[in-house]
Formats: sequence, C-alpha cells, structure tokens
Amino acid sequence: MDAEFLKKLIAPAQTKIALVILDGLGGLPMEPGGKTELETACTPNLDALAGRSALGLTQPAGPGITVGSGPGHLAIFGYDPIENEIGRGALEALGVDFELGPEDVAARGNFCSVDADGIITDRRAGRIPTELGRELAELLNTIQIDGVEFFVRPVKEHRFAFVMRGAGLGDGLSETDPQKTGVKPLPVCATDPGSERSAQFLNQFIEKARCLLAEKQPANMIMLRGFAKLPRIPTYPELYGLHPAAVAINGMYRGVARLAGMEVLRVEGDTIADEFSMLEKHWNDFDFFYLHVKKTDTYGEAGDFAGKVRVIEEVDSLSPRLMALAPDVVIVGGDHSSPAVLKSHSWHPVPVLLYAKNVRPDGIAEFGERACARGSLGVLPAKHIIRIALANSGRISKYGA
Amino acid sequence: MDAEFLKKLIAPAQTKIALVILDGLGGLPMEPGGKTELETACTPNLDALAGRSALGLTQPAGPGITVGSGPGHLAIFGYDPIENEIGRGALEALGVDFELGPEDVAARGNFCSVDADGIITDRRAGRIPTELGRELAELLNTIQIDGVEFFVRPVKEHRFAFVMRGAGLGDGLSETDPQKTGVKPLPVCATDPGSERSAQFLNQFIEKARCLLAEKQPANMIMLRGFAKLPRIPTYPELYGLHPAAVAINGMYRGVARLAGMEVLRVEGDTIADEFSMLEKHWNDFDFFYLHVKKTDTYGEAGDFAGKVRVIEEVDSLSPRLMALAPDVVIVGGDHSSPAVLKSHSWHPVPVLLYAKNVRPDGIAEFGERACARGSLGVLPAKHIIRIALANSGRISKYGA
Repeated sequence: MDAEFLKKLIAPAQTKIALVILDGLGGLPMEPGGKTELETACTPNLDALAGRSALGLTQPAGPGITVGSGPGHLAIFGYDPIENEIGRGALEALGVDFELGPEDVAARGNFCSVDADGIITDRRAGRIPTELGRELAELLNTIQIDGVEFFVRPVKEHRFAFVMRGAGLGDGLSETDPQKTGVKPLPVCATDPGSERSAQFLNQFIEKARCLLAEKQPANMIMLRGFAKLPRIPTYPELYGLHPAAVAINGMYRGVARLAGMEVLRVEGDTIADEFSMLEKHWNDFDFFYLHVKKTDTYGEAGDFAGKVRVIEEVDSLSPRLMALAPDVVIVGGDHSSPAVLKSHSWHPVPVLLYAKNVRPDGIAEFGERACARGSLGVLPAKHIIRIALANSGRISKYGA
Repeated sequence: MDAEFLKKLIAPAQTKIALVILDGLGGLPMEPGGKTELETACTPNLDALAGRSALGLTQPAGPGITVGSGPGHLAIFGYDPIENEIGRGALEALGVDFELGPEDVAARGNFCSVDADGIITDRRAGRIPTELGRELAELLNTIQIDGVEFFVRPVKEHRFAFVMRGAGLGDGLSETDPQKTGVKPLPVCATDPGSERSAQFLNQFIEKARCLLAEKQPANMIMLRGFAKLPRIPTYPELYGLHPAAVAINGMYRGVARLAGMEVLRVEGDTIADEFSMLEKHWNDFDFFYLHVKKTDTYGEAGDFAGKVRVIEEVDSLSPRLMALAPDVVIVGGDHSSPAVLKSHSWHPVPVLLYAKNVRPDGIAEFGERACARGSLGVLPAKHIIRIALANSGRISKYGA
C-alpha cells in the first residue's frame, strides 16, 4: 500500500491520536524461562488498556534487522526506514537538537592529532575532555567564508556535529577520515557534479580550522565524514491532514519528529511526568501527539533490567493522565527492542497495543511480549501502525463502492 | 528488504548455524478433529527445544502456492523463489546430482516412438524399463560435435536429463515436444539472438540421436524440453560471509545447496543417522550446516501417515546429537508441506522453530502445526528465516544510529 493510494482516501475528523513510544521497549528474559522487562513490570493500567486493545509485535525494518533510533522512529511514524535513510551526518546533527534545514549539509566531525607534516597520529585526539571539545567547537564557529554558513556543535569528547548552510549545496561528498594513522587527512571531493561547490567550501573551512587549531595539540586538526542532507519525506499535515505535536526531550527524537512535520514542544522539566504535563497543557491545540520516553532504552543499553522495569512502571502509573484526556486512539509501543541482557538495541519485534473505541479488542488483559505475540495485529511492519490508527480515528474513507 | 541492503550490514562472527529441513514436513489430519503427522509423532526432544525457541509457520512462495522442492529450498535458503526461478531442465539435471556449471544449458529429455515417416506414435516410448533407458542414455553419450559437450543421464523409464556445455550458449530455445502424437517432433528454434548457436548444436545432436536410435524401437527418437541454465544467485559466502556445508543425499537438494554456494558433503551411508554423523565429523570445518531429511516427503507423497510419523520420530531421537555440538542457532523446519492425506505437496504453511541463546522464547513446549501458529514468528515468508537466524548468530550489525 503506497502513500499516494492512502492520501486519496484521507478524510478530516475531529478525533485525537496519542502515540506513546517507550524507547527500546522490547526486551528479553535475563535467564531461560524468565520474563522480559515488560512482563516483569507491574503495569495494572497498561494491562487493563491492553484488554480493550488490539495487540501485536512491530518490526521496524524487517525480520532480523536491528535499527538505530532514527530509522526506528521513522518506521513507527509510518515511513519506510530503508527507503528514507537518514545519513550519519544528519543523525549527528539531529542528536544535538540542531534544527536542520532541508538544504543543510551535515557531517559527523571529530578532532584528531597530526604531526608537523600533517600526518595523523591519533584519529581521536586522545579523546579530549568534553569541556575542551566544547571550547574548540566555539573556536571553529568563528570561521567565516563568503556565501555559506557553518555550525559546529560539540557532542562528546572529540566528537562534534557539523552543518554547512547555503544555497544549492549538494551532499555527494567523500569523507576526509582515511580510517588509519600515518597518512594525512583526505581532501573533500565531490562525488557528483552538484556537490563541487560544497567540496570547495568544505576544503576552505578545513584549511581555516587547521590554522586555528595549530597550537591546540593534541586536538590540532579535524576530520569530517558521513556528509548528508535530511531525506525529503512528506509530512503528517501533507499526508494525513493532521496537526501534530511532539513531546520529546532528546535531540534525535525531536529532530525526526520535526522531519515528519510535527511541532516540537519545549518540555518544561526533564521527567516523564513533565512530558505528560505538556500533553495535558497542549491537548486542545493539536490532534496528534507523539510522546517519547527515553529511559527505557538508556537502562536497556546499560544492562540495567530493574531500571528499565521501573521506567515502564512509571509510564504505567502516568498513563491514567493520558486516558483522562479521552483520546480517541492510543498507541503504546517502541521504536526497537533494547533488552538489558544484550546491553544494546536488538532485532526482536516490539510489543504494541492499539486502543480505540472501535478497535476489535483481543481480550488479552496483559501488555507483554508473549501476550502481544498472541494479538490480532500479528507481527507487522512498524510503518503500518499509523495507518491502523488513522482508520480508528475516522480518517480513512472507503475505497471503492 | 533487498539483498543489497542486508549485505551492507553483514558482520563476521564465530558462531555456528544449523538448518535442519524435514522435506514436506507440514501435514494435515487424516480425518476431522485429528492430529497432523508432526502433532502425532512423539517428539520429546523437539518439544523441549520448541519451548526454548521462537515458533512460526513459513510460506515458501506466498499464500496458497504449492511449491516443488527446488523453489521450496531456495525459499528456506533465503532467496525469493519467484524471482529466482529454476527452469525445468536445470531441475532435472540437479535431480540426478549432475554438477551443472553456470553456463550449462540443461533440458528434460525423453525417448519416444516414431514411425517410418518420423511421425510420433508414442510420446513416452511405451514407458520403457529404466534399465533400457540407462543403456540408451549411454548410447547417446557417444555423440560428439565439435565445440560443444553433451551429457545424458538416465532418470526413470523413458526420461533422462540432458546437458549441453560450451562457451556462449544461450537458453532461449523452443521445445521439440509437440505435446501430441501424429506429428513430427519440432526442431529447436532460438527465441533470442544469443541462442542461435545453441539451436544449431541441439538440432545436430537430435539428428545424430535419431540415426543412433533408428533400430531401437519403441525408443527410436528423443524429445527435449524445458531448456534452462541455472539462475545466477549470489552465494552464502558472497551474501553473508558464511562458510556453509550441505548434508544431503538426494540430487535435487545437493544441487540447490551447491547453487547457494554450499560445500556439498558426500554422506557415508544413506540413513538419517549417517547424515547426523557427517554433521559431527565436519562440525569444526564450517559455520553453517544444512541437513536434509528426504523421507518425510517420500512417505507424505505415498500417503503413508504412519511412515511419515516414524521419520519425524527418528529425527527427534537424533536431534540430541546436534544439540550436543552446541550450535548457536538451530532452525528445524521444512521446504513445503506434504500431507499424507493429500499424497502430494501442498500449499499449507510449514512449521518452523528457531532456537538461539538470545531468541525470545515463546514458551510453547510443543513442535506442531497448531503450536507454531501461536508462535511469535507468525506466518512469515520462508525466505525471512535465514535473516532472523543471521541476526541471532550475531552477523547483522545495526542499521542507522
């Protein structure tokens, strides 16, 4: 089912949809015969909601594929994450909450060490302290070249996000990191004719950076890689006629939501409860709400099973505040799995529940991996969830007579 | 998800995968309310393994499609069996364990009867005894034509496999069997410009065969059809960096395994236990093992329900020998269904279990059609199984950040 087909069927409605994403929600038992994080968590509210919902398991990018947060979110937002690849550089810029424009060329940057002849001696500049990285990024932000703007944003240690802004700049560009020491950084070369001006500007920037950093060893040079613009994707207003808002604290999620045309709200505070407060505050202003919970993933990646369980329980205890707003459609799911036992993202399909007045409930009053495996949504591509939500919100008219 | 996408994510690992295929595994009850062959079989070992596995049902070529062994195996090997069609002639050559080269043009051949004017009187030459077919095939093997080699291998009764080997030979060729008696066999015609030399060689071969067989009535002529080269498919080493081995006794399965780039081991003996012995003997030499059990299908096609049950029980009793090797990933499944009640291959999805250390177990300690229908793998294309196995073997890196 393609986007053009769906678009023709879209109809307006006065209903509201809430998409609650617990990052890295899917899990695994810590030992054979055990329960997953979600199965272990005491979730009376979500269990009751599950009983009135259709359940299933989502696959972000097909069987066996482990996704990062970028493609994982594109998928649960309804986009094909393989057709709409977000390049490395763009992901880095989104990660620091940089408002990337559609023509901006982004890259992953890092400081490195070179000797007197410009030969690389350490590709990571000895992993300089984050604070020093921040100061050096500020220095790079003073570089000016006519006809183009540059933005350097510190990330962590020797890493930074790099953005070049200007008219008609292509992103078909080779990387400067030779991936080894003992040689000089490579110049940027255009890999397509439309990117030649970009390459010129970038090589000028790099030369100016080299001069500015000359006395700053070990961080006396930079390297840039993963040049990318944002992919062009149709937005929620264009596709569905929705007026959507995003409640998310971390940069990456705010960035992908912006890409989908969501208005990204500035959360007052940094707790999950603060996020639910934003939902309440703006409930009358939008008809679609994406709410992102980060810490399920953080604990999953840290291998902290109990921590992940606690975050799930916190969301459960807050969920009545969402239901009190009387949303017409509620989705609770994840962008990927992050089992504590693996301390990483994983390929396992992700539990999802879809509640709506006219959903066909499975009557399974339990929100968990194995309960969802028995659900009527089956194992489905994550990108299909939004369509089922739109149908349940009264926004998809009949096809044919 | 296409092969190119997956290929970029493939990473090396030191793990081992075992794919055990019970040919025609899927079944049906003999009567309403009954159990299938697999459900009837006493399989304590596979049931216990199922309890630690993810279960599902595979469809080789989509809903409702009954496949032969060729496409059924391509699918469970991870290839799209519709995009990668193996032509009739190539299947016939694989079936007699002929080592088809990538440029060989194969065909299904048969002896027929013609009268003094060359008019076909019996398209199957009275179904001559297999022994006579073998002798006549030897006679045809004496035919020599400059610039090209021919191989004739007896199959059964009047049938033989035919292979032409030479440089730059196309397989766009019309068949010589007119599909009726009372007319002469047709000449071979090229259906594309690249196959004109092939047609010339083939018509020369047929003329020489006619002369050699002139006094051999009722088998005094031949017909060739289903001209085909092997499809070009990327191999397991190319796609996944695997070093794979196949343990299979019958030609067809050995041939398809060879096509996928597996090293086909010569089994010492002809029992299933002999096959497990080969697995043990070569366990340290490869990182992927395909083991094929033929007789489940043989009994299914013969309508012998109890025979098929016994073979499944034999595999169950041997399976601890596989598990004792400590494989990282184990798949037990089939290439298609062959219910005894139908005495044929069928379209019914095929039970599959996938065991791995980090699989998310469904906790269903039963290996059977209805148990698998409740599994978390759902009803899935057979070609997806290998990807899930690769993920569980640690061979697929994360997509995006």
